Amino acid sequence: MKKQLDLTLYLVLDPLLCEGINGMVNTTKIAIANGVTAIQLRSEQTFSGKDWYYAALALKETLKGTPIPLFINDHVDIALAVDADGVHIGQSDLPVDVTRQLIGNKKWLGFSISNHQQLNAVPWQKVDYLGIGPIYPTATKKDAAKALGTKQLTELVKLKQCPAVAIGGIDESNITDVIHTGIEGVAVVSAICGKKDIQQATLSLINKIKQAK
Amino acid sequence: MKKQLDLTLYLVLDPLLCEGINGMVNTTKIAIANGVTAIQLRSEQTFSGKDWYYAALALKETLKGTPIPLFINDHVDIALAVDADGVHIGQSDLPVDVTRQLIGNKKWLGFSISNHQQLNAVPWQKVDYLGIGPIYPTATKKDAAKALGTKQLTELVKLKQCPAVAIGGIDESNITDVIHTGIEGVAVVSAICGKKDIQQATLSLINKIKQAK
Repeated sequence: MKKQLDLTLYLVLDPLLCEGINGMVNTTKIAIANGVTAIQLRSEQTFSGKDWYYAALALKETLKGTPIPLFINDHVDIALAVDADGVHIGQSDLPVDVTRQLIGNKKWLGFSISNHQQLNAVPWQKVDYLGIGPIYPTATKKDAAKALGTKQLTELVKLKQCPAVAIGGIDESNITDVIHTGIEGVAVVSAICGKKDIQQATLSLINKIKQAK
Repeated sequence: MKKQLDLTLYLVLDPLLCEGINGMVNTTKIAIANGVTAIQLRSEQTFSGKDWYYAALALKETLKGTPIPLFINDHVDIALAVDADGVHIGQSDLPVDVTRQLIGNKKWLGFSISNHQQLNAVPWQKVDYLGIGPIYPTATKKDAAKALGTKQLTELVKLKQCPAVAIGGIDESNITDVIHTGIEGVAVVSAICGKKDIQQATLSLINKIKQAK
C-alpha cells in the first residue's frame, strides 16, 4: 500500500551532516517522532552504490510500520533495490517519463524546479509533487540555482498543478514566510541534520508551520 | 534475444577521452567494424543522470542490429532505462544479488575483482563474467587497486569459474602477455578511446590477440 504523501515537514538526510548511517537512522527516529512527515536520502558527496544501498535499507527498516515515506534522491536503482516509497529527481537526472516508467505508479515521484521556465515544462500527469527552490542561498547543495525568494515562490505556487515543498536555506528564522506563500510544505536539510538537539529543532519548525498555516 | 557474450576485445568507453557522446558513437562504429566484441559505457568523472541516459541511448541505437552487447557500468537504472544488454559492477557498487534481482536473467552481469579474496567471494551462479584487474598501473580509473601483473592473473584465471576479461593498463605492448595467461579476453579504455586512428588501434590489438591465442 502506498504511504501518505504529506509534505508538511520533509527531511532531506545528508550522510555527511548526520555523520553516517547510524546518525541518519537516529535523526530519522527523533524527527518522525516529533512531526517530520517525509524522509529523503540524498548524498552530495561521493557515496558509492554500496553505501547508498545499505543506507537506504537501514532507513527503509527504520520507517517500517510508520506512515512516513522514504524518498531516494536521483538513484532510481537504489529506490527499486530497497523498494522505497518514492524517488526525487532534478533537472539533470533521468527524464521524468523514463523515471516514471522505471518506478511504475506505486511509487511517488518528486521533481525539482528552480524557475518559471522549468515549471512550464513539468509533465504534470507523471509527477506527484514538486520541490521548488532554492528559496534562500544554501550550502548543502553545490549545484543549486539562484535563490528564488518568497515573492517568486508565491508566483510559482499559484501556477503549479500539484503539491509542492519549498527547499533551500529554510530554517526557523524564515519558515513562517515560506509557509505564508501558500505552499504545502517545507523541506530542510541542515535545519535538522547535525543539530545537537534534533527533537528541539524539529519541534521548533513544526510549531512555526502550525502557527503560520 | 540475448546478444553474444564474446569477451575477446571489450571496449570500455570513456566520455572524456572520446570527447562526448558523438565521439563515443564514432569510436564504437569504427571499433566494432574492426573486431571489438563488447562495449561498455563508464564514466569516472561527474556525469549527470541525464548525461548517462542520453549517452547510453545513443550507444544502444548504434549497436542495434549488431551482435555486440552494450554494458552499463555501475548504473543499473540506466541499464534498465535503455534496456542495455548487461551491467558491470564493482566491489563498491550495489551487491551482486541485488543487481541480479533488478536486472533479471535476460541481461548479462559482469563483476570486478582485484585479488584472491574477492575471487573467493564471487557468487558464481549470479555472475556471467568477471573483470580482473588492474593488470598494469592505469590512469583511467581513480579508485583502482594495486596492479596484479600477469603472474597473479594466471593464478586467478585458473581458479575462476566463469569467463573473464583482464583490464587495466593493457595496450598493444603487453596484450600478448595477458592473453598468454589463458584469459578469454581483454578490456581496454585508452588503448582505443582518444586514439587518432581508432581503426588502426583496434586492428593492432585484435591481431595481437589472434596471434597469441
